[in-house]
Amino acid sequence: MNKDIPVFSLQRLPVYLNYLRGLSDDCDNNYISSGRIAKALGFGEVLVRKDLAYSGCAGRPKVGYPRLELIGALEEFLCVNARKTAVIIGAGGLGSALLSYGGFEHYGFQVPVAFDSDPAKIGTTISGKPVLDVKDLEKGCREAGAVLAIIAVPASAAHSVGEQLKAAGIKAILNFAPVQLNLGEEVKVINMDVAANLAVLSAMI
Amino acid sequence: MNKDIPVFSLQRLPVYLNYLRGLSDDCDNNYISSGRIAKALGFGEVLVRKDLAYSGCAGRPKVGYPRLELIGALEEFLCVNARKTAVIIGAGGLGSALLSYGGFEHYGFQVPVAFDSDPAKIGTTISGKPVLDVKDLEKGCREAGAVLAIIAVPASAAHSVGEQLKAAGIKAILNFAPVQLNLGEEVKVINMDVAANLAVLSAMI
Repeated sequence: MNKDIPVFSLQRLPVYLNYLRGLSDDCDNNYISSGRIAKALGFGEVLVRKDLAYSGCAGRPKVGYPRLELIGALEEFLCVNARKTAVIIGAGGLGSALLSYGGFEHYGFQVPVAFDSDPAKIGTTISGKPVLDVKDLEKGCREAGAVLAIIAVPASAAHSVGEQLKAAGIKAILNFAPVQLNLGEEVKVINMDVAANLAVLSAMI
Repeated sequence: MNKDIPVFSLQRLPVYLNYLRGLSDDCDNNYISSGRIAKALGFGEVLVRKDLAYSGCAGRPKVGYPRLELIGALEEFLCVNARKTAVIIGAGGLGSALLSYGGFEHYGFQVPVAFDSDPAKIGTTISGKPVLDVKDLEKGCREAGAVLAIIAVPASAAHSVGEQLKAAGIKAILNFAPVQLNLGEEVKVINMDVAANLAVLSAMI
């Protein structure tokens, strides 16, 4: 099942999807080979085939993958067609930017609300979306039908927020706070520490 | 050299650093074993040893790593002590949030300026930092002594901005635009597609 697929493989699937969606609809692109995909994206060809096998869409030998079918399979796999709700915790600079971000729609996400603890922010709206009191997090998540959350709070608050989200029934968290968040098997976490990734880049040059 | 270390290994090094920095200075933490680190972070112990070997700091059998020395070695490796300058391209919601973000200091980064193409933004300041005209990108990067950049522009502008950054002498880019940016061997890129990572999470639950 999806739960057993390494996250690094899963993280390449949207890359394939973006690439395939970006090709024009002319007949040269009806079928696309793993070699062509590999070359365009700078991946190994064997890796490409292994990744795309997860989607369930099979390629035809010497012809390649039927492009539109592969797009559909990847979208299905990434649950693009299921309307999913994510909430944001933290309405500071980053949280506000994410609340206003239009890119979530491409993957079928709605992000209708943010939560914060700052009285100056609670009750305001950002891009027409309300900022609610984090005290009402559990109730708010259930009412929104949310299964995903994005954490954009300071490091010191992240673990506590994570536990509250877990109690609220959230199953997956994208964490921007600069801490390694680990909430056990029931809650999947991807940590995106911006400053740490910049440090990694400077170690690479 | 650092350039040969897989980026996924490099991306774990700040995680170790954060963890080690977070421990108190009492004598129980003078030495820390790979087992203890592994357990705290949910990594395998062999992986921890392999990763920490990159830092050049050796552990003592049955005792562990000297914590402060290991912190120093990781900071050295991640160039924390070298003042490094990064610039931001795109002063929209995300770019503004990053320009105001205080977390870069923990890794020795200064982020003094952003660039944009919107006349309404050019010439303004965000958290006291100027927004300059992206037309002056090359000159601005050189004057700032920048070797790193963060891209926070729409997908349609990302490749063009990437090429301009490469021409400006930028060696590494953190890319938030939802495209796979590939600028050849001379420019290292880490792509952070927020919506795609949320999609990956929803595929995992």
